[in-house]
Amino acid sequence: MSDIPERISVREVGPRDGLQNEDPVPTEAKIELIDRLSGTGVQRIEAVSFVRPEAIPQMADADAVWAGIRRAPAVRYSALVPNLRGARRAIDSGLTEIEAVVSASGTHNRKNVNRSTEKSLDDIAKIIEAAHRRGAICQVIVSTAWGCPYEGDVPVRRVAEVAARAVADGADCVSFGDTTGMATPRRVRELVAAFRSAHPDVPLNVHFHNTRGTGLANVLAALELGVCDFDASVGGLGGCPYAPGATGNIATEELVYMAEDMGVATGINLDAMIEAAADAERIIGRRLPSQVLRAGPRTRTIPV
Amino acid sequence: MSDIPERISVREVGPRDGLQNEDPVPTEAKIELIDRLSGTGVQRIEAVSFVRPEAIPQMADADAVWAGIRRAPAVRYSALVPNLRGARRAIDSGLTEIEAVVSASGTHNRKNVNRSTEKSLDDIAKIIEAAHRRGAICQVIVSTAWGCPYEGDVPVRRVAEVAARAVADGADCVSFGDTTGMATPRRVRELVAAFRSAHPDVPLNVHFHNTRGTGLANVLAALELGVCDFDASVGGLGGCPYAPGATGNIATEELVYMAEDMGVATGINLDAMIEAAADAERIIGRRLPSQVLRAGPRTRTIPV
Repeated sequence: MSDIPERISVREVGPRDGLQNEDPVPTEAKIELIDRLSGTGVQRIEAVSFVRPEAIPQMADADAVWAGIRRAPAVRYSALVPNLRGARRAIDSGLTEIEAVVSASGTHNRKNVNRSTEKSLDDIAKIIEAAHRRGAICQVIVSTAWGCPYEGDVPVRRVAEVAARAVADGADCVSFGDTTGMATPRRVRELVAAFRSAHPDVPLNVHFHNTRGTGLANVLAALELGVCDFDASVGGLGGCPYAPGATGNIATEELVYMAEDMGVATGINLDAMIEAAADAERIIGRRLPSQVLRAGPRTRTIPV
Repeated sequence: MSDIPERISVREVGPRDGLQNEDPVPTEAKIELIDRLSGTGVQRIEAVSFVRPEAIPQMADADAVWAGIRRAPAVRYSALVPNLRGARRAIDSGLTEIEAVVSASGTHNRKNVNRSTEKSLDDIAKIIEAAHRRGAICQVIVSTAWGCPYEGDVPVRRVAEVAARAVADGADCVSFGDTTGMATPRRVRELVAAFRSAHPDVPLNVHFHNTRGTGLANVLAALELGVCDFDASVGGLGGCPYAPGATGNIATEELVYMAEDMGVATGINLDAMIEAAADAERIIGRRLPSQVLRAGPRTRTIPV
């Protein structure tokens, strides 16, 4: 337990990963949400993705959103890009951090982007190169890192292999994505340990879903291994596309609540994040799964 | 992490703690639920509580429920009792395990039973004595062990003091109850360590709520300290009476899912417990918070 970090960096993914898995919302609402989030103390925000509007209508207004937000100097904004064209669009728009994604599961990668994992890694190598040429950094997200909804288990060795290829191609950091909430504490330990021993100096981000209730338990396991970079989504925005009605991303305010209580600084004001979650709930018009949003922090007592 | 036990004993509290916090359901439905649960491999079931029907109408049919169930030889059934009278009723009915409850928070105890924590401890001493005289065992549940909805933090020293008094009075085991979901991994470690160092030989049960999302993270923290006895409620039955719409007990199938994946045996058939949770959902007619019920276990893949 001695490896628990003193502070972590949270990446708020609600505006992109969250809203991409909800019914479309107005551009103005997205801008307001991002601006509100940038006032919570969060250090990183995944703001948009530069994808084809036909493919993902929820992100069709990426340019307008990115142009419309107030850029907070203390926040690092990033965009997800599906290909080299998207990467150029992002960098042309002034983003200096992009994310490229590949699935460790061949079946999942093929279902998503109609090509093999190896072909996606080839494409990502070009994206990384383009980013670096323009002074931007590129994170490679390895999705289905703890399991695939089609294939089931994905061997740790295979996930590590995909990550190693990305690192060899120059990825500035790697993020392991628990795409459908199949991670458990034991599996978190195994994969993080494997990655760390192979790449002790490469920053590692983890992205958990709470689809099977283990979201914060997985965070705890990662914290105990000294992981410092975590994704989370305000209110738990973004359902699980593979299990109707199921929960997706862990809620940012729950992550902050637990981490801060353990003495792990997040820089985030918990009350402000809960207010942002209430806003997010209003914006999408459905009840979000965050428990801390529902019950409030433990410091909220009932008057006697 | 080396203290993680090879096996744990789960106490299913849905039929009592769960249903007591839901709208009343028919006696027959309770009997069916308990009988279904006893076929899942669960080792302990909190079946009923012997309370005044005026006080808790949900448990008014305790005698009929207890008389109606099929007693599975491998299952240890228990009843919660509020006082000596309830203890006698339980033992007269043939129960050999009873639970008495006291709140570590003075305000919470007074709100609940209109007397001080010390007075409740005096009463519990008599309940333990009565149980032992009749060959039954008595667990003392210390509620608000990780916080009180009225007082906020309850000092570890105070909780340990209440537990020590119960042990001194002959409690066969102690259960710490996270009544309103205020436990966090750090707080679990502190209290479990304090209790263990004072009473290394007294069995310790823990009872977590998922009110703020940390339910399974708290389980993980307890497992890492070698705790072997856990409460959980099928489907997550039983809301939080202090936060409308909020989640109460951790779901048994989520606990089983995580523990088994860590190599910790529970003796419980996960699929059977998920089916029981689906039944529980039908019985009470509202969606239960269990994520594993919603998404299924991680082994449930989508045909390609």
